[in-house]
Amino acid sequence: MTDSYLPRAEYDFSQGPLRSDNSDADPVRQFSLWYEKEAQSGEHDGNRMALATADTEGCPSVRMVLLKQFGATGFIFFTDYGSRKATELEQNPRAALLFHWPRLQRQVRIEGRVEKVSREMSEEYFSQRPRNSQVGAAVSQQSSPLCDRSIFEAQVSKMLEGDDPIPCPESWGGFCLVPDRFEFWQGQPGRIHNRVLYLSDSGAWQRSELQP
Amino acid sequence: MTDSYLPRAEYDFSQGPLRSDNSDADPVRQFSLWYEKEAQSGEHDGNRMALATADTEGCPSVRMVLLKQFGATGFIFFTDYGSRKATELEQNPRAALLFHWPRLQRQVRIEGRVEKVSREMSEEYFSQRPRNSQVGAAVSQQSSPLCDRSIFEAQVSKMLEGDDPIPCPESWGGFCLVPDRFEFWQGQPGRIHNRVLYLSDSGAWQRSELQP
Repeated sequence: MTDSYLPRAEYDFSQGPLRSDNSDADPVRQFSLWYEKEAQSGEHDGNRMALATADTEGCPSVRMVLLKQFGATGFIFFTDYGSRKATELEQNPRAALLFHWPRLQRQVRIEGRVEKVSREMSEEYFSQRPRNSQVGAAVSQQSSPLCDRSIFEAQVSKMLEGDDPIPCPESWGGFCLVPDRFEFWQGQPGRIHNRVLYLSDSGAWQRSELQP
Repeated sequence: MTDSYLPRAEYDFSQGPLRSDNSDADPVRQFSLWYEKEAQSGEHDGNRMALATADTEGCPSVRMVLLKQFGATGFIFFTDYGSRKATELEQNPRAALLFHWPRLQRQVRIEGRVEKVSREMSEEYFSQRPRNSQVGAAVSQQSSPLCDRSIFEAQVSKMLEGDDPIPCPESWGGFCLVPDRFEFWQGQPGRIHNRVLYLSDSGAWQRSELQP
């Protein structure tokens, strides 16, 4: 064990409060407002999100992924359909997203069910990726054991050399998380943080606040 | 939907590679090495982690918490035992942690079972917290509906005014996650990231690499 408790960081909780009466009635619009604010505050990295999945035994796992598109339909990300996350999502489509934007002392939690996006969309997005990302996706069987790194790297190098278009692998594509729950968390001084909850009720969003 | 895909950030993947033969044989020591490096690289906020839990139906949820201590025994954090995360952990003790350290292009994923820490430890840690954090914990029933903010704020103000010691609430305390799986992720150029996996095998740690 560490000898004492880990050092306490000083957080600047200077953003105004978020309440159920000053948030947008539509959680996707509220997300969009915060997303734009985050994008203005620094680098274009506000689309990094933690994705939590669970296997059929209920064991959770979590990793970072990149949000690629969002709107009323849902929140879209792409992956190898053979990866651990995709395997878990095939068996248990419930998932949770977490955006953590420390510059603004904010979190957004989104929960729902995922569906695969159309093959056309996956191919269209794949075609826009940089060539080395396409090569990585084509060569890697994500989350499988890496038995011989030198063979793997040779495959990557060989494919990078050519200039043939790289087709979207059959085993690669997108998921869309269709939300039924949002929580917006605004850090506030003295641990009295704001938490605004949106729950889907037959297609309408019900807003309330939670204790911090 | 957003009109086009969200902007792509430029990442600086300049850290050297992590391999199964240059990582520490003990994943807790490897974590400690990276944790110290992260602490040296910026503010003391490397102890922020995403905690994923799942309910008895296998629905995952995820939020940020602060790591307070770690070692061979496990990874310790504190919370309201009545909160959603604690309720889920009481029913399903499997949990997953994610540390995301973008300055060093690193992720650490840790999975295992949680156990409550001793009442003595919870009380001892609570006694070290700033008074306003103690007050927040004593007044809030975390994750319950906030029915009347003005009553809540009045309770907080009243308790803050006094100078009586604030005892650790019965419903507040720590969890220790006892890991059986670690993954260390080091971002590398061209999407060829390094992933080193440690699996517990009857108390011994087996190391291997995963495809990116």
